Amino acid sequence: MENYRIEKDTLGEVRVPVNKYWGAQTQRSKENFKIGSEKMPLEVIYGLVFIKKAAAIVNFQLGKLSEEKMKAIIKVCDSIHNGDLNEHFPLVVWQTGSGTQSNMNVNEVIANLANEWLKDQDASFGKIHPNDDVNMSQSSNDTFPTAMHIAAYTKIVEELLPAISGLKSTLLEKEKDFSKIIKIGRTHLQDATPLTLGQEISGWRVMLEKCERMITGASKFLLDLAIGGTAVGTGINAPSQFGDKVADQISILTGYPFRSSENKFHALTSHDEIVHVHGALKALAADLMKIANDVRWLASGPRSGIGEISIPANEPGSSIMPGKVNPTQSEALTMIACQVFGNDAAISFAASQGNFELNVFKPVIINNFIQSIRLLADGIKSFNKNCVLGLEANEEIIKEHVNRSLMLVTALNPHIGYEKAAEIAKLAFKDNCSLKEAAIKIGYVSEQQFSNWVRPENMI
Amino acid sequence: MENYRIEKDTLGEVRVPVNKYWGAQTQRSKENFKIGSEKMPLEVIYGLVFIKKAAAIVNFQLGKLSEEKMKAIIKVCDSIHNGDLNEHFPLVVWQTGSGTQSNMNVNEVIANLANEWLKDQDASFGKIHPNDDVNMSQSSNDTFPTAMHIAAYTKIVEELLPAISGLKSTLLEKEKDFSKIIKIGRTHLQDATPLTLGQEISGWRVMLEKCERMITGASKFLLDLAIGGTAVGTGINAPSQFGDKVADQISILTGYPFRSSENKFHALTSHDEIVHVHGALKALAADLMKIANDVRWLASGPRSGIGEISIPANEPGSSIMPGKVNPTQSEALTMIACQVFGNDAAISFAASQGNFELNVFKPVIINNFIQSIRLLADGIKSFNKNCVLGLEANEEIIKEHVNRSLMLVTALNPHIGYEKAAEIAKLAFKDNCSLKEAAIKIGYVSEQQFSNWVRPENMI
Amino acid sequence: MENYRIEKDTLGEVRVPVNKYWGAQTQRSKENFKIGSEKMPLEVIYGLVFIKKAAAIVNFQLGKLSEEKMKAIIKVCDSIHNGDLNEHFPLVVWQTGSGTQSNMNVNEVIANLANEWLKDQDASFGKIHPNDDVNMSQSSNDTFPTAMHIAAYTKIVEELLPAISGLKSTLLEKEKDFSKIIKIGRTHLQDATPLTLGQEISGWRVMLEKCERMITGASKFLLDLAIGGTAVGTGINAPSQFGDKVADQISILTGYPFRSSENKFHALTSHDEIVHVHGALKALAADLMKIANDVRWLASGPRSGIGEISIPANEPGSSIMPGKVNPTQSEALTMIACQVFGNDAAISFAASQGNFELNVFKPVIINNFIQSIRLLADGIKSFNKNCVLGLEANEEIIKEHVNRSLMLVTALNPHIGYEKAAEIAKLAFKDNCSLKEAAIKIGYVSEQQFSNWVRPENMI
Amino acid sequence: MENYRIEKDTLGEVRVPVNKYWGAQTQRSKENFKIGSEKMPLEVIYGLVFIKKAAAIVNFQLGKLSEEKMKAIIKVCDSIHNGDLNEHFPLVVWQTGSGTQSNMNVNEVIANLANEWLKDQDASFGKIHPNDDVNMSQSSNDTFPTAMHIAAYTKIVEELLPAISGLKSTLLEKEKDFSKIIKIGRTHLQDATPLTLGQEISGWRVMLEKCERMITGASKFLLDLAIGGTAVGTGINAPSQFGDKVADQISILTGYPFRSSENKFHALTSHDEIVHVHGALKALAADLMKIANDVRWLASGPRSGIGEISIPANEPGSSIMPGKVNPTQSEALTMIACQVFGNDAAISFAASQGNFELNVFKPVIINNFIQSIRLLADGIKSFNKNCVLGLEANEEIIKEHVNRSLMLVTALNPHIGYEKAAEIAKLAFKDNCSLKEAAIKIGYVSEQQFSNWVRPENMI
Repeated sequence: MENYRIEKDTLGEVRVPVNKYWGAQTQRSKENFKIGSEKMPLEVIYGLVFIKKAAAIVNFQLGKLSEEKMKAIIKVCDSIHNGDLNEHFPLVVWQTGSGTQSNMNVNEVIANLANEWLKDQDASFGKIHPNDDVNMSQSSNDTFPTAMHIAAYTKIVEELLPAISGLKSTLLEKEKDFSKIIKIGRTHLQDATPLTLGQEISGWRVMLEKCERMITGASKFLLDLAIGGTAVGTGINAPSQFGDKVADQISILTGYPFRSSENKFHALTSHDEIVHVHGALKALAADLMKIANDVRWLASGPRSGIGEISIPANEPGSSIMPGKVNPTQSEALTMIACQVFGNDAAISFAASQGNFELNVFKPVIINNFIQSIRLLADGIKSFNKNCVLGLEANEEIIKEHVNRSLMLVTALNPHIGYEKAAEIAKLAFKDNCSLKEAAIKIGYVSEQQFSNWVRPENMI
Repeated sequence: MENYRIEKDTLGEVRVPVNKYWGAQTQRSKENFKIGSEKMPLEVIYGLVFIKKAAAIVNFQLGKLSEEKMKAIIKVCDSIHNGDLNEHFPLVVWQTGSGTQSNMNVNEVIANLANEWLKDQDASFGKIHPNDDVNMSQSSNDTFPTAMHIAAYTKIVEELLPAISGLKSTLLEKEKDFSKIIKIGRTHLQDATPLTLGQEISGWRVMLEKCERMITGASKFLLDLAIGGTAVGTGINAPSQFGDKVADQISILTGYPFRSSENKFHALTSHDEIVHVHGALKALAADLMKIANDVRWLASGPRSGIGEISIPANEPGSSIMPGKVNPTQSEALTMIACQVFGNDAAISFAASQGNFELNVFKPVIINNFIQSIRLLADGIKSFNKNCVLGLEANEEIIKEHVNRSLMLVTALNPHIGYEKAAEIAKLAFKDNCSLKEAAIKIGYVSEQQFSNWVRPENMI
Repeated sequence: MENYRIEKDTLGEVRVPVNKYWGAQTQRSKENFKIGSEKMPLEVIYGLVFIKKAAAIVNFQLGKLSEEKMKAIIKVCDSIHNGDLNEHFPLVVWQTGSGTQSNMNVNEVIANLANEWLKDQDASFGKIHPNDDVNMSQSSNDTFPTAMHIAAYTKIVEELLPAISGLKSTLLEKEKDFSKIIKIGRTHLQDATPLTLGQEISGWRVMLEKCERMITGASKFLLDLAIGGTAVGTGINAPSQFGDKVADQISILTGYPFRSSENKFHALTSHDEIVHVHGALKALAADLMKIANDVRWLASGPRSGIGEISIPANEPGSSIMPGKVNPTQSEALTMIACQVFGNDAAISFAASQGNFELNVFKPVIINNFIQSIRLLADGIKSFNKNCVLGLEANEEIIKEHVNRSLMLVTALNPHIGYEKAAEIAKLAFKDNCSLKEAAIKIGYVSEQQFSNWVRPENMI
Repeated sequence: MENYRIEKDTLGEVRVPVNKYWGAQTQRSKENFKIGSEKMPLEVIYGLVFIKKAAAIVNFQLGKLSEEKMKAIIKVCDSIHNGDLNEHFPLVVWQTGSGTQSNMNVNEVIANLANEWLKDQDASFGKIHPNDDVNMSQSSNDTFPTAMHIAAYTKIVEELLPAISGLKSTLLEKEKDFSKIIKIGRTHLQDATPLTLGQEISGWRVMLEKCERMITGASKFLLDLAIGGTAVGTGINAPSQFGDKVADQISILTGYPFRSSENKFHALTSHDEIVHVHGALKALAADLMKIANDVRWLASGPRSGIGEISIPANEPGSSIMPGKVNPTQSEALTMIACQVFGNDAAISFAASQGNFELNVFKPVIINNFIQSIRLLADGIKSFNKNCVLGLEANEEIIKEHVNRSLMLVTALNPHIGYEKAAEIAKLAFKDNCSLKEAAIKIGYVSEQQFSNWVRPENMI
């Protein structure tokens, strides 16, 4: 570290790079936790910055912070939110389990930069202190879980739900386009009674709708914020209305109806809301795996598969087999589903490991949560744009599959009963003939009856 | 099999024990799936029986089933619901993934027993057929997921929620009893600022309340029933209003507002609702692990642990250490939490594996789901009755812990700033003296000021 | 409880059913843990009984137990191992996390029954005490993990490995039978270059072989036994050679080379061996899911699927679609794979939760472990017998698929390069013609060259 | 994209940034998969580069590649391995499930850079083609899984095992240092019989030793390489000895005994070895969670916890509580354990999802695997250096805990029996007196006997 300045905290002096605004505690964390490459998500940093800004406003309103300090803090916060200072938040996820070091990273950057800005003015009002001013009336123990909820909720509403909505629209379009195409149904991978391709796709669309409703409903629990609880939930060193007022400010700043949690002891030590919402994300992942699998199976072939639909050929599929085109968007999406399943396990275990007044597995929880949302949102958008939008029906193949199916025999049940119908199907299979031929040969129905009763268009 | 009768299905003849009411398909399943010992949960069987009864009523109303057959079917259904026929449902979970064999088991038992009963009458109206009559207008593909939802919803409402409610009441009681007992808070397992024991317990209570709300909210999605979709979701062979009417009947029979699902293609092939609800159950499991851990840590000792509470001594704890008493109820509950985490993984993965018109992992999904509810409900009840009800505060130890704590220094922050307060705490730790002694020695506050500012009763 | 006798332990008197041999501590556990229906696996009970028998022999040899008592204990142990006394082990998994209550259940049943037997003799040597005699030189803390290893190892060797071996033999048979049948390969579900059906099946066989080797290698770690560690690993109250001698006896009794663990502190509080072995079981589960999926996809149809193989029709597949036959054995096996994945999560998490000298999640660990082995063994046997043995190749369909494949073009790479080969494949796809037609039309090769170079039989 | 050049592949033209060496297929992947920020791990890229280098050598030896091309390819490969070209591998994990795009990325960068280098010479021998030359005799389907094994094995041997070894050494040191310090044992969190602090730590050390052996044993399975299997396992377009020869070259280049897998059909479509090895990593994670938990619990306090050891104060622990020091290294390590559990679920699910000749979940599998190793290695090193090395015993507290323990009573069992010993312990607890006082009061032993029999130093 060639060019450095000396910073200090309650444990002593530390060398910090001159061109970085962080302070002693951030630097210590950098040195003590050389683990992996996963940075604390910027979403969480930005969430903390919302809190710092809101707290500065409230502390000013309560007469605890001067107007100059408030303004300086706000100015830095806005600058961070603009994305201008991302490089000053270098800490990894694998730090203290309370996220204290990232909270202090934010406190330090704001204080240092604000002080730099104040220095240029005629500043008679003293320096801004990372703990006493920026962190005033707060503790990492309430700011970090508050930032987790802000980050999680915002990211769901602003990235995931629109992505789901986009795919849903495309599916609805396809559903209408294919509403007249009758195809063979398949259960247990075996031929079953027919339905329309539009109906099949409607099932996918409704999966997204259900998940949308489940995620939206569950996410409401994220609106409860820990802020105001400070160190252990009692709100020590914070004015009694601090939590409510800061939550109000955060609502104004973000546009979402956050509120101060009713019980701060819960808010600091339980992450049941996160587990619950991620359960809904996992339901989405499970549905996406099913949809992506259906798409690639229906598009399997081109000569020796099911081949009932075509999907876009976005890139050469093979480094050895020329002309091969693969369902790569489905593959990316199913891999994402696996990751979300894994993330769910990590989050749940971590959420169960709280002790007494604090759960100290917060960074791993929120990092996995944010990753899940990002991957789901990006993956859905990519799948929509690069695959589903270009999905087409191969009507000839679809028609051929319906026509030769044996399960159309089901339509005879109400007329001749399950057992006789089964005899017909078995004969057709055994003799490799059509159902109608088998039905007439066996004598349970006349040709006329068969033609009247067994009509795919009446079976959907 | 000494005493047997001959039953037949579309594949031919099978020997069935004379004293059992099941038929050929049940017997085939028994012989083809000699796997494990996990029986299809009775809750699912009973759910199927609700459907058979409701369907018989509706089919009669629609003029498709004679009154005599309906009455006979209803009579057997009631008898099964009374628990008189449990031994006639011998199939294991590890069967066909659609649950067809258990659906047929129910159809066969009902048909055989109803026919026996009808035989005694002057029965001119013909035999009841398991497929054509009992299963009329249904397919395993819609009845089995319908039964899954009936079983899951009912079990949550009737067993889990009351169990949660019971523990919540006890905790509220304790919260009031201990509302005046000030104790040391702990974050990172390290001494922190104080709170009351009642406040600490309120955090646990609110965990249960949140989970109650999350489970209740999520469970509403279970009210959608697949019935009416029959084989692939199109409702083939069922009258168009069949699903709605049967759902109405089931609502009357169970007392819960079930309804026919709007999209049957979704209902047969996605189990997102189950994944979602189990996510809420897992949030509960995570909270219970945290609560049970707190209880056993607070009760640790008796001489060399934290020892702030006492829990009942229900049994000798050790086969070698005489007089040892262990927090066994906590242990059972934390083991249950692990099981619920495991079940969640099994359920989610299974739910992602649907293809086309049907997910064929239904039995493993519902078996894990029902096990989770049963274990959570029983575990909570046992924990409540055998542990929490008898939980007592060890006030002497609690008091001693508060008094010697160094983190009371936090109360000085607003007066002298974070850094000076840290100096005091460090000195007290280094010199192994009290905070007050250190504070005065270092000279930042007077004795009077210290006594005024550092008062545990003002920090809660 | 109408007919009971009074038993007592160090906490006082308890009523026990007269016709049961268990004692006070078992009875307390029954009453205090009314949770779920999962009994402690008999495999664990039998493992404990091996220890009791071995310990009695060693204690006699060391002069600590009289010959009469030893003989009486051995006699009861043999009777339990014969399966005559299973009903006397009623405790559930959800008890104390050390398994103490099941250890005491075994001690009590042995003592009570042995005393009954001794009573009939001219017994001047005093009563057998469950703790002082049956549990002599032992603690639940060393006996229970010892029983876990005995149960786990034995079950793997005696049930799982033979099941794997059986399926492997069948696959090898099929591999040979189908060694000449050239079929289309599939990657990304898309047609690829050909291979023989025998080669495809050889991949499945080698999966089983690898898993066999992995499970066998990992299981060696289960041969280390905790016995001799007693309460906390120090071996308090046990003679210094007790662990070694008992392990030797257990080896003689079981026929497997068990040994006393070198470090008992590890043995009581870590279950890394169990986690490790279950990881190998999960690798097997993943392979089985893949194999079972391949089987059911290859057998999909009968008219609108891949249809390259046929599997036995063991039962009617549908309650509504007559004549439908489903790949139910594959379905059972894939559900089992999901369960094993879930069990793995439960086991791992539980194994991580030890504190200080003991991990108290033992019952949930071993119950999931034993369930995994049982389901895998039973599932493999069922799949082998009811599905793979009857698997047949549909040679006509296979041939047709190969012949029309576009990926045979890959054989042209070495002659004309990847890019020109790709052009040919694309043209054939676009014009829906054969590869040869496209190749000649485009002019990169002559008909003769094509026929010489593109020969499926040279591509395998 | 201001400055670009035109590249083309079999699907047409693509614009590529002029300052990047990648080609058309890499560019397509970049544009079609805008998903997340997780790049394909460099370890995998480097693994692929080992293959390209080895393949060039072998293809030259077999007379299929000119010496000039070989040399050019080798030169680029060495440059990549030096880390000079990392920016040219921009693809994310969420791409095609075969890793084809990363394989082509490597092929393209090597070809483009080699051609640039050859251009400067008098190059009469033609251009190097990414598919026909760099990828000669290979397919992504065999190179990618080969690179996975190279990356996984190398990373374990070079990073994880040394990290484990380092921590083991420190623990052994502490074990010796503390071999005479007798402390209270704890089971069920309750006071138990004593052991030495050295013995307690020996349990941790042996956990690491066992894991070392388990990981080492399991990793041997990673030495089998898929290379030689090409597209579907048959080795189409590769000389028959290609796999063996390339594996030999890779062994020479890396120094590890890799070999060509015996069955390539297995090697392309099953990742059982990866699942198995990760199971051993998870056993390590479970042990680390236990060790890290023990450390932070033993260090809990400073005034109201167990406090038997001290750990270094590396940074201020709280943003609100001055002077607070937290066990942050333990927290980072336990969070890592949660992540490894989650990764294990993701890997296992993904590994089970192969179809036919290829598993297309390879990138998600290897990304999670590499992350687990990196986090475990880094986390262990950090924990060792920043926590365990500075761990000290608080002998006064330890002594006090032993002296007042009630479980020393266990030493009386052999003399007076379990029941009388229990009476003594209960009396001491009830009367809050010492064991000796209770023993004498109750009269079962004399003071002399007590002093002779109950000696902690004889109980370890």
